[in-house]
Amino acid sequence: MTITIVGVGLLGGSFALAVREKYPKATFVGVDASPVHGQLALAKGIVDQMKPLDEAVAVSTLVVLATPVNTILDLLPRVLDHLPEGATVTDLGSTKGLICQLADAHPKRAQFVAVHPMAGTENSGPGAAFRELLPGKNLIICDREKSRPDSLKLVEALFSDIGMKLFYMNPQEHDLHLAYVSHLSHISSFALGLTVLEKEKDEQAIFDMASTGFSSTVRLAKSSPQMWAPIFDQNRTNVSQALGDYIEFLKQFKVLIDEQNLKDSSEFMARANQIRRVLEGIDRK
Amino acid sequence: MTITIVGVGLLGGSFALAVREKYPKATFVGVDASPVHGQLALAKGIVDQMKPLDEAVAVSTLVVLATPVNTILDLLPRVLDHLPEGATVTDLGSTKGLICQLADAHPKRAQFVAVHPMAGTENSGPGAAFRELLPGKNLIICDREKSRPDSLKLVEALFSDIGMKLFYMNPQEHDLHLAYVSHLSHISSFALGLTVLEKEKDEQAIFDMASTGFSSTVRLAKSSPQMWAPIFDQNRTNVSQALGDYIEFLKQFKVLIDEQNLKDSSEFMARANQIRRVLEGIDRK
Repeated sequence: MTITIVGVGLLGGSFALAVREKYPKATFVGVDASPVHGQLALAKGIVDQMKPLDEAVAVSTLVVLATPVNTILDLLPRVLDHLPEGATVTDLGSTKGLICQLADAHPKRAQFVAVHPMAGTENSGPGAAFRELLPGKNLIICDREKSRPDSLKLVEALFSDIGMKLFYMNPQEHDLHLAYVSHLSHISSFALGLTVLEKEKDEQAIFDMASTGFSSTVRLAKSSPQMWAPIFDQNRTNVSQALGDYIEFLKQFKVLIDEQNLKDSSEFMARANQIRRVLEGIDRK
Repeated sequence: MTITIVGVGLLGGSFALAVREKYPKATFVGVDASPVHGQLALAKGIVDQMKPLDEAVAVSTLVVLATPVNTILDLLPRVLDHLPEGATVTDLGSTKGLICQLADAHPKRAQFVAVHPMAGTENSGPGAAFRELLPGKNLIICDREKSRPDSLKLVEALFSDIGMKLFYMNPQEHDLHLAYVSHLSHISSFALGLTVLEKEKDEQAIFDMASTGFSSTVRLAKSSPQMWAPIFDQNRTNVSQALGDYIEFLKQFKVLIDEQNLKDSSEFMARANQIRRVLEGIDRK
């Protein structure tokens, strides 16, 4: 089996490292726009060889698109065009609506399986990839009924074998949920980072006074703009709604503080405390 | 030396556990409004005995106020009133302006040392206390010139000896900085938790789809309203300003998303990425 990883970064690289361990006989081919990333992926044992896209696709059993989501839109039709009969393409993109819509328009739609692993870190590139990123995490598969049974089976087997738990939903549901439980977190962090940096011109002061709570809340502000700008754009209707809701709650809270309404501000926080149940579940995963 | 810890919770308890190790001969007395917390603090070895406040103060070398900040305002004048000649009182509150202002009005002001350890977790109570919370973290001391040299020296020695790094500033600077690097983080988390909980009535969906990024951003939403409502209230001018700035940045970002301005939204995130330098410093601490 030959698996081609297009985009040998955090997610593609971590997927390859995990699968290699379970499928030692599989050959891994890398495709990447950056020669430096290609070299690093080879050195780190993520892939066995680097190839140009069309050449790699021609010899693949499975092609994994692990680039930013705007590039997935560019590459998916081209990969399907050149995909051998019997081969499969999957994408790991954080949005599913536009990608699935584009796939639906292609005559070889059935050879495509749309997935999204619920895992990541604020770092990027092959240097950030690690084998333990995906095992134990959840995988969302969208529109499974539109994929050929053998393609679906191959993708399900690979992700199951590296220890992921599979969930199924349609792309619209996926994108709506993700706006709230992932995309909004990133925006809240980016804006928090910027608010603090603009105010605290003296970075030493932030450094001296910030605690681990600040560090944890603002961690995602380190995330890659190249990756996130197209995600927010592709999911802009849901993200804009989530962000609007968030701004409303912040404005409500500001009024409670300004009016010294400690009773209602305590009540606001007590309602937010309910997230503890959910987090205990996530942390156990 | 007899040290009285008023409020044997996360911060008071962690302080006692760290100091006990360095000063094995010191006696630790606990004061707490909750008998259950008192029992737990005794069982966990945080203190040697529990006593009523006035009785404990009368035999103390040092009294440490580690309650919510509204209670510190209630207790500080009373503790100063009853404090033996030669003894010292310090407070670990997250706000310093009102507390220092109140102290300034007391004839025994010089026996008071205002401090704030830059450490905490989202948990509370003696069960959450642990010896490693404070060592390696920073301590802010406010208005040191208003404290008697022997009182200041005792407090500095204790916190230094448990491995904290000491910084000095006035209460106004402290409260302004803290609004940005700590209080705002908590509000962003509380509001994020609430936004997600209100939208996702099905908590299983959050659980299945949220990644560690969400978990990290929303962690502080578990924090205690009893502790935080008075902090936001005492520091409301600065907190309201910080929150207003934050809402402005979020609104700007929403416009960029709505207008599909990927160039400027990328630029916004790239500016926020600068927080990486600061965080690398914090994580090294």
